[in-house]
Amino acid sequence: MDPRRLIGMGLAIACAAAAPRARDLGVPFEGTPGPLNAITDIKGVEVGQVTLIAGNGKLEIGKGPIRTGVTTILPRGRGGEPVYGGTFDLNGNGEMTGQAYLTDIGTIDGPIGISNTNAIGQVYAGIMQWSQHAIGHTATPVVAETWDGWLNDIEGFHVQPTDAIRALNAAHGGAVEEGNVGGGTGMVCFGFKGGIGTASRRIQAGGHGYTVGVLVQCNTGDRKTLRIAGVPAGEALADRWLPCYDPALAPPQKMPKCRNDGSVGQKRPDHGSIIIVAGTDAPLTPTQLTRVAKRTALGLARLGSYAGNDSGDLMLAFSTAAAQVNHVDQTQAPPIAQLANQAVDPVFEATVEATEEAIVNAMVAARTMTGIDGMRYFAIPRDELIKLLRQYGRHAP
Amino acid sequence: MDPRRLIGMGLAIACAAAAPRARDLGVPFEGTPGPLNAITDIKGVEVGQVTLIAGNGKLEIGKGPIRTGVTTILPRGRGGEPVYGGTFDLNGNGEMTGQAYLTDIGTIDGPIGISNTNAIGQVYAGIMQWSQHAIGHTATPVVAETWDGWLNDIEGFHVQPTDAIRALNAAHGGAVEEGNVGGGTGMVCFGFKGGIGTASRRIQAGGHGYTVGVLVQCNTGDRKTLRIAGVPAGEALADRWLPCYDPALAPPQKMPKCRNDGSVGQKRPDHGSIIIVAGTDAPLTPTQLTRVAKRTALGLARLGSYAGNDSGDLMLAFSTAAAQVNHVDQTQAPPIAQLANQAVDPVFEATVEATEEAIVNAMVAARTMTGIDGMRYFAIPRDELIKLLRQYGRHAP
Amino acid sequence: MDPRRLIGMGLAIACAAAAPRARDLGVPFEGTPGPLNAITDIKGVEVGQVTLIAGNGKLEIGKGPIRTGVTTILPRGRGGEPVYGGTFDLNGNGEMTGQAYLTDIGTIDGPIGISNTNAIGQVYAGIMQWSQHAIGHTATPVVAETWDGWLNDIEGFHVQPTDAIRALNAAHGGAVEEGNVGGGTGMVCFGFKGGIGTASRRIQAGGHGYTVGVLVQCNTGDRKTLRIAGVPAGEALADRWLPCYDPALAPPQKMPKCRNDGSVGQKRPDHGSIIIVAGTDAPLTPTQLTRVAKRTALGLARLGSYAGNDSGDLMLAFSTAAAQVNHVDQTQAPPIAQLANQAVDPVFEATVEATEEAIVNAMVAARTMTGIDGMRYFAIPRDELIKLLRQYGRHAP
Amino acid sequence: MDPRRLIGMGLAIACAAAAPRARDLGVPFEGTPGPLNAITDIKGVEVGQVTLIAGNGKLEIGKGPIRTGVTTILPRGRGGEPVYGGTFDLNGNGEMTGQAYLTDIGTIDGPIGISNTNAIGQVYAGIMQWSQHAIGHTATPVVAETWDGWLNDIEGFHVQPTDAIRALNAAHGGAVEEGNVGGGTGMVCFGFKGGIGTASRRIQAGGHGYTVGVLVQCNTGDRKTLRIAGVPAGEALADRWLPCYDPALAPPQKMPKCRNDGSVGQKRPDHGSIIIVAGTDAPLTPTQLTRVAKRTALGLARLGSYAGNDSGDLMLAFSTAAAQVNHVDQTQAPPIAQLANQAVDPVFEATVEATEEAIVNAMVAARTMTGIDGMRYFAIPRDELIKLLRQYGRHAP
Repeated sequence: MDPRRLIGMGLAIACAAAAPRARDLGVPFEGTPGPLNAITDIKGVEVGQVTLIAGNGKLEIGKGPIRTGVTTILPRGRGGEPVYGGTFDLNGNGEMTGQAYLTDIGTIDGPIGISNTNAIGQVYAGIMQWSQHAIGHTATPVVAETWDGWLNDIEGFHVQPTDAIRALNAAHGGAVEEGNVGGGTGMVCFGFKGGIGTASRRIQAGGHGYTVGVLVQCNTGDRKTLRIAGVPAGEALADRWLPCYDPALAPPQKMPKCRNDGSVGQKRPDHGSIIIVAGTDAPLTPTQLTRVAKRTALGLARLGSYAGNDSGDLMLAFSTAAAQVNHVDQTQAPPIAQLANQAVDPVFEATVEATEEAIVNAMVAARTMTGIDGMRYFAIPRDELIKLLRQYGRHAP
Repeated sequence: MDPRRLIGMGLAIACAAAAPRARDLGVPFEGTPGPLNAITDIKGVEVGQVTLIAGNGKLEIGKGPIRTGVTTILPRGRGGEPVYGGTFDLNGNGEMTGQAYLTDIGTIDGPIGISNTNAIGQVYAGIMQWSQHAIGHTATPVVAETWDGWLNDIEGFHVQPTDAIRALNAAHGGAVEEGNVGGGTGMVCFGFKGGIGTASRRIQAGGHGYTVGVLVQCNTGDRKTLRIAGVPAGEALADRWLPCYDPALAPPQKMPKCRNDGSVGQKRPDHGSIIIVAGTDAPLTPTQLTRVAKRTALGLARLGSYAGNDSGDLMLAFSTAAAQVNHVDQTQAPPIAQLANQAVDPVFEATVEATEEAIVNAMVAARTMTGIDGMRYFAIPRDELIKLLRQYGRHAP
Repeated sequence: MDPRRLIGMGLAIACAAAAPRARDLGVPFEGTPGPLNAITDIKGVEVGQVTLIAGNGKLEIGKGPIRTGVTTILPRGRGGEPVYGGTFDLNGNGEMTGQAYLTDIGTIDGPIGISNTNAIGQVYAGIMQWSQHAIGHTATPVVAETWDGWLNDIEGFHVQPTDAIRALNAAHGGAVEEGNVGGGTGMVCFGFKGGIGTASRRIQAGGHGYTVGVLVQCNTGDRKTLRIAGVPAGEALADRWLPCYDPALAPPQKMPKCRNDGSVGQKRPDHGSIIIVAGTDAPLTPTQLTRVAKRTALGLARLGSYAGNDSGDLMLAFSTAAAQVNHVDQTQAPPIAQLANQAVDPVFEATVEATEEAIVNAMVAARTMTGIDGMRYFAIPRDELIKLLRQYGRHAP
Repeated sequence: MDPRRLIGMGLAIACAAAAPRARDLGVPFEGTPGPLNAITDIKGVEVGQVTLIAGNGKLEIGKGPIRTGVTTILPRGRGGEPVYGGTFDLNGNGEMTGQAYLTDIGTIDGPIGISNTNAIGQVYAGIMQWSQHAIGHTATPVVAETWDGWLNDIEGFHVQPTDAIRALNAAHGGAVEEGNVGGGTGMVCFGFKGGIGTASRRIQAGGHGYTVGVLVQCNTGDRKTLRIAGVPAGEALADRWLPCYDPALAPPQKMPKCRNDGSVGQKRPDHGSIIIVAGTDAPLTPTQLTRVAKRTALGLARLGSYAGNDSGDLMLAFSTAAAQVNHVDQTQAPPIAQLANQAVDPVFEATVEATEEAIVNAMVAARTMTGIDGMRYFAIPRDELIKLLRQYGRHAP
């Protein structure tokens, strides 16, 4: 096995259990999360991630440093049955495959993969190959990306189809690792170190209890507009924790050396993307799931995003409720009814809430990282965040 | 009652019964039509039309001549329950209201109205007022238009909300009047007199029998590209039956006077639009009906259309199968299952076939009309059409 | 003249000049507004409104009470030349006409009208008639609606085509009346009295100075999720200023009588819609304006909206920069270049900011109103709002 | 070099020059083709193909037989500048990547790749890697597919990223090989052997001369609905030239052995897809190119397609006219104006015509092929086609 490649699943989950999440710091959120506060609170949903971290110092394309990975979501675990799905393009400056299929057929037939921009093809190939064996047919994969080239040797194409396959094989229910992990390893969120985040909500709708879960790969956002639970955190943190260069390394360009608070770093434009995946066990049709996908954009907007030109903001939603989709014998009544539109608002509200929390979770979980050419992105400083929440009367103890 | 206004339903239907339709002339079509070969072959669907013809001679805006009307389709007759629907915009140079509602909600909540471009508002208002009384709530009407200003005093705004209401009240099952009637009164189709046309198909899909019906208001098409059942009729008829001026009237501009075969008329550009409405009793979801709406464009294309810039080509599809849509108690199983995508092809094929036939029916039924300023559009000459079908080995006796 | 109908433009504007707007109360907003902080800061843009208020007491359909009106936006004033446009459907449970035209042609050819749900047809008809005379041709009008039936006899159809024409004739540059005016007269925004609001931003983009302006008709929002400048105002004001019945009137149903703080009113679900129109003089293409229209949804989301099922949230964007659109002789170079996508972020950011402010402006300007059956909706209490801003450290003196 | 892999460019072109095309057989088409009657008639457009044919007999997944390949289109050859583009999804049961990017940004930034369904990832990866070196940056590739599993060991994943790179390096102007070549190697079109086809039109629009070119990878169509130049060829050829098994091989299932005319073959459902790429040097915006993409569907419809459920019918259009897209300094006037919508009809008409001809060219060029398990698909019999054209009065000598 390639020693550069760390699955690190076991250890990472153990750590994740101990690591504080956004609400542990006192960030107030609306609604009631599920037991894991994760997309895996939806029964049957599994997440598998592979993290690739190797090397330090000067960028040599094809050699590293490597700060990337693959995150996969299996709406039905190893089950081969499709789920209903919908998609929304808030800003198309990016890639999410399978969108025409979602529009006309309305299903997701296999796993979802998220990685870096240059890895779309490799992850697509990996999912196709895995699907053939694991679910007995090749799927029309949904593969999405964000760009990790600030920290990762992205032009070195370090993600291989086998990495996607390993991520798929590593998929499991239970807690989901957040932050610098999987596809989110090298990502940057509102100018802080970002990556993978997740959250969930328990709701009552139409007389039944359902779960809504969201997973994001956050690489988007303009620092100065960042709002956390309505608090103008971006303004307060505008001039510190800025990208800079590790003083232990000779920077290739005239860039400032890092201090601990990033106070001499360089402001960078909104450059990046976000992939948001919302799932639910509420029985929704593809038409309704397209509406759910649109609502995730409202959750992102609560963070202050204006969906900058360079940010490919692409959204996906799925429902696991129908045990079978579009294979029913139409002489028989289908086993479950859809949730009436008149009863769907709790799903919409939960989607917005869980998206907001998942993005903050991604930032809180992510750790300061040094990547190519000694480039460093800081984690959002937890103590400063708590201080700000208190200052603005928004700290929820 | 305003003497200008002719509902003329009784007589017109009587005449329509006797008038030949496209297949009576030997035009070969694929598939098996329903008993009426009309959209009303779908159980419960009603069509109501009001035809406004008054005046002759020189155009005086606001006075006439008037050659216009309103066609309404009631997917469930007077029933107030919505139907599932889908829409497609082949060319948006026109208006069909209710498209955002169809996209997100996926239902049509009331009648569909078709009229001239300047009458959208009046027909919309009429449907809203009628719905309040007739189905107990105001709907989100689908109102569509094509432009009849070659023959009609369109800038005179002769269609009133009351005309829409009369058309709705006149709605009935059974045979549908075609040609110069309702919204199609003053329309032009591939340079011949056009208007309303309809057709239907009986199909087997997923082990059940269903009906697909189409109604068009044809005001589109470039003469030279017209193909009828594959026969290049447009080429053969390119230089005769051209628009011209009634020799009994002094034309306002230097335009040629009509001869019987229109051989000194004026070639006019593709200028117009087509509205195509497809209905079915097959149990289809909004996602599937959007696919059906797209297929009507393929039927139009068989006629030779290239969807010219000025042609607002807007499509609609609905299914009456679900007795209730989106009001089901989600604790109960829904009464019927959708048709599986794997079984949907007969619906698609029937949609294309019925669209093709409905357009030819519109042309065959329409009669030569003289309108504003003595402007005349010729009906497609039936004997020439038969001759052409024979010449190209396509006459079906 | 019908005494029920008040244009009231002169007086109202005088009042508006004196009335505080959101930032006068200390609500902090990002960015730099134009001189009027209104959509009319864009050179050439005019707004005309007609307000219909008449009657009190028990609802008699067709008689009143009347609380409605029409708001029109003329992107080029009386100029007949189209502007480039784009549209976005966040939630299609409503109507905005002209969407197919915007998709394929990419222009708005005449005025934009906003009124109540049942007035779409009448306003459409009025704009068509006015356009014929005022700009020399009939347009493909963009007409949008929100539902004012909580306060207005909406089923009485009190808006006539002539009201739309009067609104068009009343259009002017300069300050825009906000709150209970025009189409916004009877609207409700996050459970407070809502209506028309506007705001603008001055930006630098690609080395040039531009203006972005937004006008909203706000009838949307769930009280409990309301955030103003990030402050959880909805939570704090959840149980007071609730809809109730004027104690001077006998309520038709068992509803609570109003106290001054609405503390015994009735919580109502998110029921309503919002229309958002963004304009700019930055030279943007239809493709880019579609992106701008999407960004207005992010401004709405900052207020806490989850775009509830019943809310028709429909967005529009236009640019006045190109003096001519799509009529250029293609042998000549066009007079101006588009703004490069790489330079477009300031437009996006300003759009989000101005949308956020316009919605708060609508609430701050609106005054408590009593409508049908004595139903009362409260204005957001200004002193409470100031108190909340201070409490959460967000008051900008 | 892997001996299984045949570029065969030199020889194939030589053959192509001699091979008859559809119009050489007397199929009548409208319009005036360019000198090559190919997409490469557009100045600067290059096409590169790699054909992979190896093995015979029984299918062993991963070993073969192999009947597949890659077709690439380079809108600007090796030039790195993007082109304006638009896309249309007639039936989304397939994959074309880059659609969100086309929607929001409106450009194609690199080469277009077409291959088999299972090769999307590999071709994507290949284009990314090639772009980094050849055009100096990684692109957002447009990669599309159709399914060649009737003849090819598609589950064996024989297309590698290097095959895409070889196809890109092989790209050239001049004549384009058609039929069993590149991505079209193993494809089936209306039940006959299909594959790659191309055609072009010279037009006058807005006072200038332009070229419209189309390239298709045809793997779609239900034999019985096939119309060629309006002639019901599918009906006439419904029972012969059907898929069957090479009598020299033992079929794995109970399938009929082939006779020369396929008269004992097996009718197969419409199963497949089509990718249609239209290009032009007419100066069109992304909005207009989306309209062009829609018109290619009308060309497909002329062949009789009803866009069956299993057929992923995905369309693309691009314009090479603007030397620079979206990088212009907006202080400068752009170098060229767009073609006015009022002048665009010749582009639409040419698009329909060239699509129709390109599909027939694909069928005429393709040769009978035997693939996995001895499965054989017949080429459309040229002499029978000529006979039919004569029979229906449509032979153009």
